[in-house]
Amino acid sequence: MPDFGLSPEQKETKERAHQFAEKIMRPVARKYDETGEWAVDVYKAAWDYGYLQALVPEDCGGPGASQMEEAIVCEELSWGCGGLYTSIMANGLAMTPVLIAGSPEQKKKWLGMIAEEPKFAAFSLSEPNAGSDAGAMSCRAEKKGDKYVINGTKCYCTNGGYADWYALFCSTDPSKGARGTSCIIVPRNTPGLVVGKALDKMGQRASNQVELYFNDAEVPAENILGKEGMGFVIAMKTLDQTRAAVAAGGVGVARAAFEIALEYAKTRIQFGQPIFANQAISFMLADMAKKIEAARLLTWQAAWMTDNGIKNSKQSAIAKTFATDTAMEVTTDAVQILGGNGYSRDYLVEKCMRDAKLLQIYEGTNQIQRLVIAKEIQQGN
Amino acid sequence: MPDFGLSPEQKETKERAHQFAEKIMRPVARKYDETGEWAVDVYKAAWDYGYLQALVPEDCGGPGASQMEEAIVCEELSWGCGGLYTSIMANGLAMTPVLIAGSPEQKKKWLGMIAEEPKFAAFSLSEPNAGSDAGAMSCRAEKKGDKYVINGTKCYCTNGGYADWYALFCSTDPSKGARGTSCIIVPRNTPGLVVGKALDKMGQRASNQVELYFNDAEVPAENILGKEGMGFVIAMKTLDQTRAAVAAGGVGVARAAFEIALEYAKTRIQFGQPIFANQAISFMLADMAKKIEAARLLTWQAAWMTDNGIKNSKQSAIAKTFATDTAMEVTTDAVQILGGNGYSRDYLVEKCMRDAKLLQIYEGTNQIQRLVIAKEIQQGN
Amino acid sequence: MPDFGLSPEQKETKERAHQFAEKIMRPVARKYDETGEWAVDVYKAAWDYGYLQALVPEDCGGPGASQMEEAIVCEELSWGCGGLYTSIMANGLAMTPVLIAGSPEQKKKWLGMIAEEPKFAAFSLSEPNAGSDAGAMSCRAEKKGDKYVINGTKCYCTNGGYADWYALFCSTDPSKGARGTSCIIVPRNTPGLVVGKALDKMGQRASNQVELYFNDAEVPAENILGKEGMGFVIAMKTLDQTRAAVAAGGVGVARAAFEIALEYAKTRIQFGQPIFANQAISFMLADMAKKIEAARLLTWQAAWMTDNGIKNSKQSAIAKTFATDTAMEVTTDAVQILGGNGYSRDYLVEKCMRDAKLLQIYEGTNQIQRLVIAKEIQQGN
Amino acid sequence: MPDFGLSPEQKETKERAHQFAEKIMRPVARKYDETGEWAVDVYKAAWDYGYLQALVPEDCGGPGASQMEEAIVCEELSWGCGGLYTSIMANGLAMTPVLIAGSPEQKKKWLGMIAEEPKFAAFSLSEPNAGSDAGAMSCRAEKKGDKYVINGTKCYCTNGGYADWYALFCSTDPSKGARGTSCIIVPRNTPGLVVGKALDKMGQRASNQVELYFNDAEVPAENILGKEGMGFVIAMKTLDQTRAAVAAGGVGVARAAFEIALEYAKTRIQFGQPIFANQAISFMLADMAKKIEAARLLTWQAAWMTDNGIKNSKQSAIAKTFATDTAMEVTTDAVQILGGNGYSRDYLVEKCMRDAKLLQIYEGTNQIQRLVIAKEIQQGN
Repeated sequence: MPDFGLSPEQKETKERAHQFAEKIMRPVARKYDETGEWAVDVYKAAWDYGYLQALVPEDCGGPGASQMEEAIVCEELSWGCGGLYTSIMANGLAMTPVLIAGSPEQKKKWLGMIAEEPKFAAFSLSEPNAGSDAGAMSCRAEKKGDKYVINGTKCYCTNGGYADWYALFCSTDPSKGARGTSCIIVPRNTPGLVVGKALDKMGQRASNQVELYFNDAEVPAENILGKEGMGFVIAMKTLDQTRAAVAAGGVGVARAAFEIALEYAKTRIQFGQPIFANQAISFMLADMAKKIEAARLLTWQAAWMTDNGIKNSKQSAIAKTFATDTAMEVTTDAVQILGGNGYSRDYLVEKCMRDAKLLQIYEGTNQIQRLVIAKEIQQGN
Repeated sequence: MPDFGLSPEQKETKERAHQFAEKIMRPVARKYDETGEWAVDVYKAAWDYGYLQALVPEDCGGPGASQMEEAIVCEELSWGCGGLYTSIMANGLAMTPVLIAGSPEQKKKWLGMIAEEPKFAAFSLSEPNAGSDAGAMSCRAEKKGDKYVINGTKCYCTNGGYADWYALFCSTDPSKGARGTSCIIVPRNTPGLVVGKALDKMGQRASNQVELYFNDAEVPAENILGKEGMGFVIAMKTLDQTRAAVAAGGVGVARAAFEIALEYAKTRIQFGQPIFANQAISFMLADMAKKIEAARLLTWQAAWMTDNGIKNSKQSAIAKTFATDTAMEVTTDAVQILGGNGYSRDYLVEKCMRDAKLLQIYEGTNQIQRLVIAKEIQQGN
Repeated sequence: MPDFGLSPEQKETKERAHQFAEKIMRPVARKYDETGEWAVDVYKAAWDYGYLQALVPEDCGGPGASQMEEAIVCEELSWGCGGLYTSIMANGLAMTPVLIAGSPEQKKKWLGMIAEEPKFAAFSLSEPNAGSDAGAMSCRAEKKGDKYVINGTKCYCTNGGYADWYALFCSTDPSKGARGTSCIIVPRNTPGLVVGKALDKMGQRASNQVELYFNDAEVPAENILGKEGMGFVIAMKTLDQTRAAVAAGGVGVARAAFEIALEYAKTRIQFGQPIFANQAISFMLADMAKKIEAARLLTWQAAWMTDNGIKNSKQSAIAKTFATDTAMEVTTDAVQILGGNGYSRDYLVEKCMRDAKLLQIYEGTNQIQRLVIAKEIQQGN
Repeated sequence: MPDFGLSPEQKETKERAHQFAEKIMRPVARKYDETGEWAVDVYKAAWDYGYLQALVPEDCGGPGASQMEEAIVCEELSWGCGGLYTSIMANGLAMTPVLIAGSPEQKKKWLGMIAEEPKFAAFSLSEPNAGSDAGAMSCRAEKKGDKYVINGTKCYCTNGGYADWYALFCSTDPSKGARGTSCIIVPRNTPGLVVGKALDKMGQRASNQVELYFNDAEVPAENILGKEGMGFVIAMKTLDQTRAAVAAGGVGVARAAFEIALEYAKTRIQFGQPIFANQAISFMLADMAKKIEAARLLTWQAAWMTDNGIKNSKQSAIAKTFATDTAMEVTTDAVQILGGNGYSRDYLVEKCMRDAKLLQIYEGTNQIQRLVIAKEIQQGN
């Protein structure tokens, strides 16, 4: 039965995450944006709070957060800083293939590792020539005895520079296209794996995206998740499940910018009154509030569906698209409301605007999301 | 705790309403659109189904539907026909002031009447020169002994031509502006009340909007709801509660057009393939699906808040605006997808487009809704 | 050298057309919208003014108007009535294939006929199963001796019910697809040609669109324009040249609605002041003015290019798309500004909104226009 | 008579400016964006080309460019780099008050100075508490003998850190509000004038905006332009005339991003074909092309009106709003088309997106522009 209220526990989860965002992330958000350094202190604290390992099941030593809890937390984290949020959220992304297809031993090993101490994992799907086209993947894993020998190049691997292991999607049988794709866990210290330099980005500069170069990199054959050929399905299921956390990121960034713009509009005096008194401004804010509200409900619905075992390809793609488009629009308008101040690095809204853009692009561009939605509605879903 | 699934009872409610819409409304929707006749047969059936009297409490002989149920039903009704839906939904609108501020006797009398047989009531707030500005109301009720003597003109009174009574908003003390407004029940057969002719409209032609002329019309003083001066508050509360049903109307009209456009796109062949194969078409449909999904969640949230006694001025105004803007956009695009056929009266989408427009206007234009949202966010809600 | 001012002659042309629109079209616009009757009186007057035969060259007895003049006139005509405008404008559409590919004799005969008395011609390209896909055309003309024998069905033929001749696009060699298409002049009284009943439409109800059924209809072989197989090129060139006149129609309908909304906003009092005093209203009007200004310049540019022999596929498709999308948006907003009055048939804006929609659809939907633009920019144009 | 073709001289002007942009600006655009250093080499070259002093009349030793030429050049300059363009364009902005209201001697002195060697001037209108509200200006000039003694603070003064003189707007009679405003030329070396540090901005980082602090700064009384109290009119006329150059900046930034995105879409292979083959991409590009085309025509029209002495408050505000909104939308979409690469600093589109935002804000936010448009249409213009 539809219910739109957070439970007392969920409210506490939200409040606690907000404190974390406000006290630990916000004070350093600008710094890490400027330097692009890896925010070890923040991530350590995020682990203390249980965010870095949120999705690790209880029997693997983690908090076993639901996607609903993850969504609640992610909204606050991205409210704190879009870049730092991405690093933390992407740990969940990387763990999801293991959660979906890992054996109990694999879960214990790879997820348990992250529950034990602040460590990172990285999800690696994109390739320079196969961003959206998983079937065109050229990264290749050949089975030789009890090893997989991996060759190829991956890109846009979030957390890749600091990960202890990678959920690598590669082809174990190129003749089968997407159906020949597999997901293999690759430890960071694997010989033959070279981590490229970090992408120099417009925003989300606290986060880390790298290229990975595999040159006869060998990993134990037991590192495969499920069976050969299951990679594509694992990837799709992973994306279905994790889109809510990205959508939540969109809600958080949008809300951060909205709150600043609202406060500014209520206090900035022009022509003898707060600029909020102008409908040109207050209606812009009203539309922001409207979109944020819708984005949050869509996000929660997508998370709720995952938690309840309901296929949510359509709803999660809708949530991701709507929420991240909202983030882009709201942050752009927030800068506008602050005018020259909005364009200045002395205020946070310009950073929100830069951070927002990546959300429309990663984990499947919003064009790819529309392909997903289109496919679902075509089938009557 | 957030939940997005309908209960079995709610699913049944939805299914039943859909049957009603499909079997009873759709076959005559075009006819009543063209003739503008009052659809007595449909309204009789709507009463049999319990829709005309949905909000009448059980102790007054009605089904005592929740706003959530009302929203579920209204989506289906407007899917059936936007005009017929308005007539039925507006009965709920007219009854809400009584539900909010009526004494037990008043409820029994005025609501009970509608539970007994298929009758209509009408909400009358707008005036020719005070559409959005309740404080400028010129319709006047003067107390003389145990009567109110009413003079003035009202307009856009939905169901007004067929109502047995009116929830009339008028001024009992013009010196107090909005705070001098009262809500008085006026029976149809009141001498001095003349009902004007019906508005000749672009769409929703099965519905009925009239002017009311009061010329020394006398009603018993006991017909006032609550006390003098409470009218403005009653009106605002009424609108807060009923916006979800209007929003649901937006969802329903949009969904009707979306479904037709989707089916058309999957079957219409051009250049050797269904036009759905063009992203220009399928992405338009994906965006429609996205907006409809968001609109429905916002609608449900607004209804849920009313049912749970939570102030929802902001959320209901958001739902109304978002859902009815969605209706306008989706129906306009649906006509586009059907091309020349969409523009033809042989298909339903052109009617959906005409019907949708009124939803952006009535029960507070979407500009007025943004004023409501703006006021709420200004206050930190 | 860029110049944005009308010459004295062009100003006079505009003023004269405005008088025509205001004095002759506006008073009967509502009537013909409601009855759907053929407005013989208006078209007779349009011929007296030289509009019905505007594009007939001087040496064929016509005024030989430029596309720039045609654009100026068409803006005013559609300001007067979107439906009546379409009938007049479509005469130019039908004549353009003859202008492009006709021999001197053909021009004299078919165009001269229209210069002599108020007659109509009709452009016939669309088919029930080949709306946008000329290559899939199934209407067939087989050469037998000195005749073409035509079989097949056409649809959406504007003016088709009242035309004296048709510029018919049909296949003379189905094996060649689009390159097997030809354009043949078919007189109305051709045995074997049956004109279907008029499309019952949402708007533009004064205009006439019919299906044409050809059943062994024979026309003289000399009626072909140019050679067999040139039909597709003739159609594309025709559409390039005539899009400016459709775009002008968009500008005119938009301007009509804008002017009414502006006047209303300046005079309608709410909360003690004209509603124009609300930025929610005045900014909507400012954005309307902005789009109309842009639409007009694009329209003029497209017309100017045709007049100067410059290929304008891209610019004319841009003009058509921009101006007709503008018409849809502006008219929808104009209804909103007038609120309940806007939705009423007592005001003209609801008719403008209904009329506008067809402009986005005919002479190539705005999706097809984007295909044209895309193809052009792909080639570096 | 409307004409949309550039003359041979104008084409040469455009080609020459494009060469400058491509050869001199583009190679250093990224560098100056990152360092924020003052691009002395570029500005020296811009003077050699005649751009820094473009508006200086011939009788003052300058090229005496028309606004049309300025618009043509500015489009190319901002195509080269949005930040460097602003520095050059703002020299024209600063000179315009002198052009409008300066005596022959003032023109010779202040404009001639810039014709002689590469020097900068700066327009100074905004104040920390009077961004859009000229009447609230607190910067004060008191006449004492043959001096003005100036006190107060200005902000967002473009080129302010490198200007040799300022066209300062300040109040000579606070009791008169906007009508007590005057425009006074203040040389850089005026004692009592302190130039603040540069604004640290999101984009356009090669440009320079500073605060100016006046503390009993004395300038000769002869430095006033026109008479006391004419400042507001001078400012408004200046903005009317210079909006076209800002609009041109919008066109140029948009075109830069569009060209990169188009090239990328034609060469980037996904799913076995260039991503341009997806309508999701090609239609986005078609809409970009459409907006850019419209923006350029509006820009040219505004410039043409200034050159022909026609009041263009409405048209120039429309051009500025449309073109800079276009810049924001097109650049944001261009980043999207390039996906992860678009977000990277290795490509230029992310810089275009950051640069574009300022155009919506400076020289009157696009909200202020809509106020201007609204005021004009209210008056029937």
